[in-house]
Amino acid sequence: MYSLNVRDHFMIAHSFKGDVFGPAQKLHGATYVVDATFTRPELDADGMVVDIGRAGAQLKAILSELGYRNLDEEPAFNGLNTTTEFLAREVFDRLVMAIRAGKFGMEAHGVTSVSVTLSESHVAWGRYEGRV
Amino acid sequence: MYSLNVRDHFMIAHSFKGDVFGPAQKLHGATYVVDATFTRPELDADGMVVDIGRAGAQLKAILSELGYRNLDEEPAFNGLNTTTEFLAREVFDRLVMAIRAGKFGMEAHGVTSVSVTLSESHVAWGRYEGRV
Amino acid sequence: MYSLNVRDHFMIAHSFKGDVFGPAQKLHGATYVVDATFTRPELDADGMVVDIGRAGAQLKAILSELGYRNLDEEPAFNGLNTTTEFLAREVFDRLVMAIRAGKFGMEAHGVTSVSVTLSESHVAWGRYEGRV
Amino acid sequence: MYSLNVRDHFMIAHSFKGDVFGPAQKLHGATYVVDATFTRPELDADGMVVDIGRAGAQLKAILSELGYRNLDEEPAFNGLNTTTEFLAREVFDRLVMAIRAGKFGMEAHGVTSVSVTLSESHVAWGRYEGRV
Amino acid sequence: MYSLNVRDHFMIAHSFKGDVFGPAQKLHGATYVVDATFTRPELDADGMVVDIGRAGAQLKAILSELGYRNLDEEPAFNGLNTTTEFLAREVFDRLVMAIRAGKFGMEAHGVTSVSVTLSESHVAWGRYEGRV
Amino acid sequence: MYSLNVRDHFMIAHSFKGDVFGPAQKLHGATYVVDATFTRPELDADGMVVDIGRAGAQLKAILSELGYRNLDEEPAFNGLNTTTEFLAREVFDRLVMAIRAGKFGMEAHGVTSVSVTLSESHVAWGRYEGRV
Repeated sequence: MYSLNVRDHFMIAHSFKGDVFGPAQKLHGATYVVDATFTRPELDADGMVVDIGRAGAQLKAILSELGYRNLDEEPAFNGLNTTTEFLAREVFDRLVMAIRAGKFGMEAHGVTSVSVTLSESHVAWGRYEGRV
Repeated sequence: MYSLNVRDHFMIAHSFKGDVFGPAQKLHGATYVVDATFTRPELDADGMVVDIGRAGAQLKAILSELGYRNLDEEPAFNGLNTTTEFLAREVFDRLVMAIRAGKFGMEAHGVTSVSVTLSESHVAWGRYEGRV
Repeated sequence: MYSLNVRDHFMIAHSFKGDVFGPAQKLHGATYVVDATFTRPELDADGMVVDIGRAGAQLKAILSELGYRNLDEEPAFNGLNTTTEFLAREVFDRLVMAIRAGKFGMEAHGVTSVSVTLSESHVAWGRYEGRV
Repeated sequence: MYSLNVRDHFMIAHSFKGDVFGPAQKLHGATYVVDATFTRPELDADGMVVDIGRAGAQLKAILSELGYRNLDEEPAFNGLNTTTEFLAREVFDRLVMAIRAGKFGMEAHGVTSVSVTLSESHVAWGRYEGRV
Repeated sequence: MYSLNVRDHFMIAHSFKGDVFGPAQKLHGATYVVDATFTRPELDADGMVVDIGRAGAQLKAILSELGYRNLDEEPAFNGLNTTTEFLAREVFDRLVMAIRAGKFGMEAHGVTSVSVTLSESHVAWGRYEGRV
Repeated sequence: MYSLNVRDHFMIAHSFKGDVFGPAQKLHGATYVVDATFTRPELDADGMVVDIGRAGAQLKAILSELGYRNLDEEPAFNGLNTTTEFLAREVFDRLVMAIRAGKFGMEAHGVTSVSVTLSESHVAWGRYEGRV
């Protein structure tokens, strides 16, 4: 299997609900450094997994929909804990939707799985990976 | 699949037996930066893979049983080469035991696999991953 | 000159005032990975710059006063933009105060300068350094 | 599964053919930081995945066949785009050939899969992984 | 002193003249990950060292003048070895020129020194730092 | 000022004397990732700070005199605590001696200062810097 990874980041405010979260129940925030990895069994005709330029642009567009926001006030996340692993799934879903909509180009339909890793600090990260 | 990773480190002395190890047959030591990754198909009711606070505390407790020691003198490792990949398995076994014993909380029983990576320098690491 | 660095992190929400900040004028947040570096011309009697255990504990205590908060609501920062470089100075001031108060131990009075670096992402950091 | 990773790098010039590559159609170059990961279900008699010394030496030998070259002039790559993911496969093929030829030692025949990651910058990497 | 750093990268082909360079006398290439650090004694009225958005945009513009090129064919570098440390100075000169030309905004005239670090691999980097 | 940095590592066993060291009073060990930085005001005739090949080879030679050893049994360190910052000075002294002895080549006599950083983990490092 071949993979290609592009990295970007976004910055948000949020809080968590539940005693298990301790001080993180208060409004705080995070920088998430995002690694989006695209995987497929064979390269396309140009020798690529995906067009790295498009991949980076699509990731940036998706992260701009999430970043510089208080996620507690986003209707889409109402009543949900926007943990690192939850947000990794959110970015995954939006990337897969963009691939299916042709925003990565026709060749990208060969991508069979995607992995999204959100690093929240130098000591912790969350990930979601699944099939396209 | 969702994953969550926590990082910590420990520092030990040891030596290896066997000509293949060259100068590492002499007593020396290492810092191991440890990445413990927990994976499961669905998030728990709080939106988490595992309670990150508990995961970090359990990892620290396990590493404190190994760190600041000369592993050559530990009865548990008698006659064994405590290579990076061997120690990754050791940390894996102890983490899985702690999960089963409920030390990560009841919700953590949804964890289906664990991966432990020990980075011994900027150019080498060892890993063990398996099912819980 | 000898130096010793310890690293930790904190997570906050905040917003900025001024057109120059663009979308960062909205409430968002950040993880800051903090490197606190202590420098002195000669080592102490134990061969150290500072007691690394105390340095780590003091840094953690100071970051816990800042973390898991909305900095927009902290009276101390009223009317100020809590940029990365501004917060680096804030951590610097609190570390220097702790050194002077003896919280790093008597030997730490040999420290002549401190540098505090806050990494806000994989592509940007701010720093303040000055004499003790 | 147990894994061991060794890291090294190589530096090349090349250009790409196809409008999709934009400015990268001009002759330019790259540093590739290479992570070669070897995986097997059980450790060998010495407690290793592979002899780390041999693994590092073999990787260095393979990278020296690729580095300090203009890949556009290498007959082996004639008419091909030497993208990061393509080159990851190239290094993979050469490592697998070396394992089969016994250059990693007889014990290394227990290796069941290899993964090769080429980091081309702080924001992008390509990978190929497959069975030995 | 306060500092702010922004990071970006560029990719080039080149070769070196002189026996001391060994195999690097052949045409090859490199990725340079660039850290541009701006330093000043006091923050501006907005609480910043420089406008981080402008700093990133200016750095990107300067690197786009250098990247995706064979530096051996650039008249500006005729007869010169474009080593990592030499290129760090080149980026420094262009950043300082941009600051003086007002491209970082009027507030940036408070910047007193700039440091430019080019990382060519995981094991080597070059730097130039000087006064504005 | 121009700088060039090369990185390598060494692995040792040791213990510390003094209550301040807590559990590190027991025999343990460390990996030190070493950054050796050479600085000078002007480049040499080849456009370099130092010959990077020689710098890497000299650093490796010096670290091989320290690595794969129990530092508690080295006569040179008898009665001393081989802390990270202490060892940074030790590597500094040996590098400066090598420069003066001409082992970096005649051009390297233009180097005016050297900095040696030893990273002992992902959260701590020690450094010594001084004039040649």
